Amino acid sequence: MSPIKVRPDVMETKPYTPGLTIEEIKEKYGLDTVIKLASNENPLGASPLAQKAVIRHAPNIFRYPQNGNPRLNKAIAKRVGVAEENIISGNGSDEVIDLLIRVKAEPGRDEILTYESCFSMYSLMSRLCGISFKQVPRDAGHKQPLKAMAAAVTDKTAIVFVTTPDNPTGLAVTTKEVREMAMAIPKQTILAIDEAYIDFATPAEEYDMRPLLSEFPNIVLLRTFSKAFGLAGMRVGFGIMSSALAGYINRARAPFTVSILAEEAAIAALSDDAFYNETLNVVHRGRKLFTDEIKGMGCEVLPSQSNFIMFKPTSNAGEVFEELLKRGIIVRPLKSFGLGEYIRVNMGTDRENKIFLENLRELL
Amino acid sequence: MSPIKVRPDVMETKPYTPGLTIEEIKEKYGLDTVIKLASNENPLGASPLAQKAVIRHAPNIFRYPQNGNPRLNKAIAKRVGVAEENIISGNGSDEVIDLLIRVKAEPGRDEILTYESCFSMYSLMSRLCGISFKQVPRDAGHKQPLKAMAAAVTDKTAIVFVTTPDNPTGLAVTTKEVREMAMAIPKQTILAIDEAYIDFATPAEEYDMRPLLSEFPNIVLLRTFSKAFGLAGMRVGFGIMSSALAGYINRARAPFTVSILAEEAAIAALSDDAFYNETLNVVHRGRKLFTDEIKGMGCEVLPSQSNFIMFKPTSNAGEVFEELLKRGIIVRPLKSFGLGEYIRVNMGTDRENKIFLENLRELL
Repeated sequence: MSPIKVRPDVMETKPYTPGLTIEEIKEKYGLDTVIKLASNENPLGASPLAQKAVIRHAPNIFRYPQNGNPRLNKAIAKRVGVAEENIISGNGSDEVIDLLIRVKAEPGRDEILTYESCFSMYSLMSRLCGISFKQVPRDAGHKQPLKAMAAAVTDKTAIVFVTTPDNPTGLAVTTKEVREMAMAIPKQTILAIDEAYIDFATPAEEYDMRPLLSEFPNIVLLRTFSKAFGLAGMRVGFGIMSSALAGYINRARAPFTVSILAEEAAIAALSDDAFYNETLNVVHRGRKLFTDEIKGMGCEVLPSQSNFIMFKPTSNAGEVFEELLKRGIIVRPLKSFGLGEYIRVNMGTDRENKIFLENLRELL
Repeated sequence: MSPIKVRPDVMETKPYTPGLTIEEIKEKYGLDTVIKLASNENPLGASPLAQKAVIRHAPNIFRYPQNGNPRLNKAIAKRVGVAEENIISGNGSDEVIDLLIRVKAEPGRDEILTYESCFSMYSLMSRLCGISFKQVPRDAGHKQPLKAMAAAVTDKTAIVFVTTPDNPTGLAVTTKEVREMAMAIPKQTILAIDEAYIDFATPAEEYDMRPLLSEFPNIVLLRTFSKAFGLAGMRVGFGIMSSALAGYINRARAPFTVSILAEEAAIAALSDDAFYNETLNVVHRGRKLFTDEIKGMGCEVLPSQSNFIMFKPTSNAGEVFEELLKRGIIVRPLKSFGLGEYIRVNMGTDRENKIFLENLRELL
């Protein structure tokens, strides 16, 4: 029997190797508790109001969701300060990234442009869509290379992706810098600004990209409920974009990709100001602590505007990762990003932060 | 400002017009209660064990799901009687349909083959993937045209989709018929059997396609938790396929598309034999009642193996649909399937079935 053949570029893809789960780490190292600071999840867990919404709507899970999630879109639009027609909700912002590529880019003709050592989803989705993918080197200090990217745009560039605050560096670009970039690229190239971590940037007004939406119909802002809203496991994110582009996506997309409980949890999380504000407090406090303390240990620390920081330990990063793991602390080694000398660690609770810093100090 | 342009085939797509929600119908017609028999949802609601799992795991929704959902795949594999490596879980079986097309079909070269008036997801996903789509006319009595489809396969046919029991007709094809079809098509064409409603077919052994998996590595079975397992709102389905094909999909796909609560609810639903068996009882009882009674009203009724039936009312189907709606009963008119003379109605609870039949009798 001949094994099934698939698209050549899929056959050439290397299998993904997932990391160990918390349970597997406990077993392997004989640990009772594990502190996970590796996935930029919310240090406070999930919003109590979101949890209550999930519990309240548990009896309704046999019904299909409402197509296009109009209630959720309305709640998001109100929060963001745009019209409902400017919102596309998705199964995580990952789905919105995928939909942007699918409706905009022509396989075999167009390309996607971003920069080196960036969030892997842009390349993964481009490959799945059969769209070629180009990366510009980062600027000095790992900064997002906005000018070099604008210069690299051609008439084949369907979408440019910029993450700010960036993953894994934590670096943010200002509204002013993005405006200059938007002015330098063709109006038919989508400029997708991935703002997964934007809630954590301060001062917020310097990084607020919303004023650009009316100036540049080719700008799309990508947001998620996985970070500041504490709903990573529910899979819900959204894009903010021109109503024309949102209309095209709505015509082309599959229905029902956001679950009933994801919708209810997200609507509830949007209303939970106390949880949101406390999340920002904990993250900002932890970010200052991590930055000061890890610098104090003699490490290079990047100035983060996010809920994580990237640093270069004074000894081998891979070994530091392994040693922390043995002690029950999971951080993110950045070899897969092409930044093997660095570690990314997200801010946890005050207690988790203290334990992490104590262990790191012992190791260095 | 020039509005954004997207892929030409997306720009040509007509916008989707969703039906009214239960709330909107109540308001429009001044109704207190509405009976929905339009989306083939579970008449008993959601499994109590699944609801409990959702409630129990509400505090964990801030964590990302485990990539690839290994626990869920293991539970499904055990239930189906295959190895874990043969299972791909997805955000509804819709995502598995999409992934099959994306990894197998070459845009601009390959095509997807199915039959007229079939489930719309195959054409929607093909269009989104930029893959051409071909339909063979149904056989007499709306039967799935397996021989005509096999004859229509060319070396460009990437995937053939067959739904059994079929939506919207309810008709099922036997294992023997599918085996004959599989023998007649090339080994490199995927034969995807969409079994969303397979739990309701009797006698089960005549329609069991699992023995074909070892004979034909190009056969894929698609299943869902939306129907017999009562989890339409959670968005979870799966494919059963060769480990080689599943391996390619796992390399290419996006991570984390099935939510934490969807995974937990599905695992719990698999363990809830009481709910599953009672669902089958209610559906089988309702199916016999609907078939006998509606035939008794002088309507053409197709022999259903599903949790819904398709019938041709003795007066105009569109008008019957509207009249039922005014009385607070939602059924599915089939104009969008190209079967405008017919209505599809799913079996509800015994009480809902009685009310529907009483109202239909009054109208005809």
